[in-house]
Amino acid sequence: MESVKVIKIGGNVVDDHTALDIFLKNFATIDGAKILVHGGGKVASAIGRSLGIEPIIVDGRRVTDIETLRVVTMAYGGLINKNIVATLQGLGCNAIGLTGVDGGLVRSQRRASGDVDFGYVGDPISVNINLLTSLVGGGFAPIVAPLTLSDAGQILNTNADTMAQTIATAMASVADVELHYIFEMDGVLDKSGSVIKAIDSAKFAELRADGTVSGGMLPKIENALSAVKQGVRRVFIGRTVCQ
Amino acid sequence: MESVKVIKIGGNVVDDHTALDIFLKNFATIDGAKILVHGGGKVASAIGRSLGIEPIIVDGRRVTDIETLRVVTMAYGGLINKNIVATLQGLGCNAIGLTGVDGGLVRSQRRASGDVDFGYVGDPISVNINLLTSLVGGGFAPIVAPLTLSDAGQILNTNADTMAQTIATAMASVADVELHYIFEMDGVLDKSGSVIKAIDSAKFAELRADGTVSGGMLPKIENALSAVKQGVRRVFIGRTVCQ
Repeated sequence: MESVKVIKIGGNVVDDHTALDIFLKNFATIDGAKILVHGGGKVASAIGRSLGIEPIIVDGRRVTDIETLRVVTMAYGGLINKNIVATLQGLGCNAIGLTGVDGGLVRSQRRASGDVDFGYVGDPISVNINLLTSLVGGGFAPIVAPLTLSDAGQILNTNADTMAQTIATAMASVADVELHYIFEMDGVLDKSGSVIKAIDSAKFAELRADGTVSGGMLPKIENALSAVKQGVRRVFIGRTVCQ
Repeated sequence: MESVKVIKIGGNVVDDHTALDIFLKNFATIDGAKILVHGGGKVASAIGRSLGIEPIIVDGRRVTDIETLRVVTMAYGGLINKNIVATLQGLGCNAIGLTGVDGGLVRSQRRASGDVDFGYVGDPISVNINLLTSLVGGGFAPIVAPLTLSDAGQILNTNADTMAQTIATAMASVADVELHYIFEMDGVLDKSGSVIKAIDSAKFAELRADGTVSGGMLPKIENALSAVKQGVRRVFIGRTVCQ
């Protein structure tokens, strides 16, 4: 494998049948090695609510008590992951669904309680690169749900953007990696609503200082810049995968 | 891989935390190649009920409408599979969770409607032996949930006993295979409650004729005899894996 695309889709795409279908048809046609990381927060919240569990989100992160961990394990590892895999298989793409738990794919450390106790939430510390390269080398497209594994064998809920960045960065040690963050907008927009073509650290400082980017876009761009600093060749943020 | 154990645990083991923990500790210590197939009907029924979906079981098989398919995809592919994998990883066993959907591991045909329309239920037609041998050869223990994939890319609910028998039979073309059906009893019992040491086709005919075995034990023994006829060396039915 000389190069690989690591692509992340978020909860808004996963929750929108039309957007998801369009994305998966596009994903199936991408030539070469590819890894998909998906979120699914909206679906998890809906399943939780129908089980009487109201979601608690602080700073964009889900507080994950033991009942919520059950819900995200069902939603991310089961419902969403297996439906994406089945759809891709139907489109002729040899997808294989995994979580970070499987084969110790992504190991993590439980986040220490600070002002907020996020519960069963983990920050990635290592990636089983051999497993990924062996699957990708075998012609499979790994479809990865954002659950990770602590050293004690505990499933931990993990931010999907961070998961994608961690996998992309790890793969950069063995391949030329592009990271794509796919979401419901055309890209990072300037104040007139036009897509900003390129962002480096200096440009990001400027955009943040003048308030052009804020909220959830800040950690996304920070993740992207961090990936590039750690060897990922390019990061794209937008609605579709540019080939 | 010269030999492999294919082990199946049913819903009563999966649903009983103590029994499951004992089983998984035992499974983790088994030397050599091993594949686990799990059911989880009781857990799926409980999740369904808490979502307002009452299970409908006919002749021991779950009628799987689209809502029930969502439930079993969450329960089998997500909650149960990932918790088993995490527990085994914590015990030092390099488990990797899959469904028959992943990598086209087990393809199936949707069952035609007869007197009963079972809905999204499939009978296995083929196994991706290369994927299993490559994972097992790489030191992983595949943990397989009973969901399969139709040619049209549809997830189908599949009987776990049949799934285990199908995988064992397919693996018999490349390895020496033992199939173990683990359940809540010590084995197939005679009328005095003692374990019957060995059953072949003739013995089975006799046990069925005199009413010693009946109900759910009939398809289990039929599956076992069918596996042996198709090249599986031995089948065990009991509470623990005999090494």
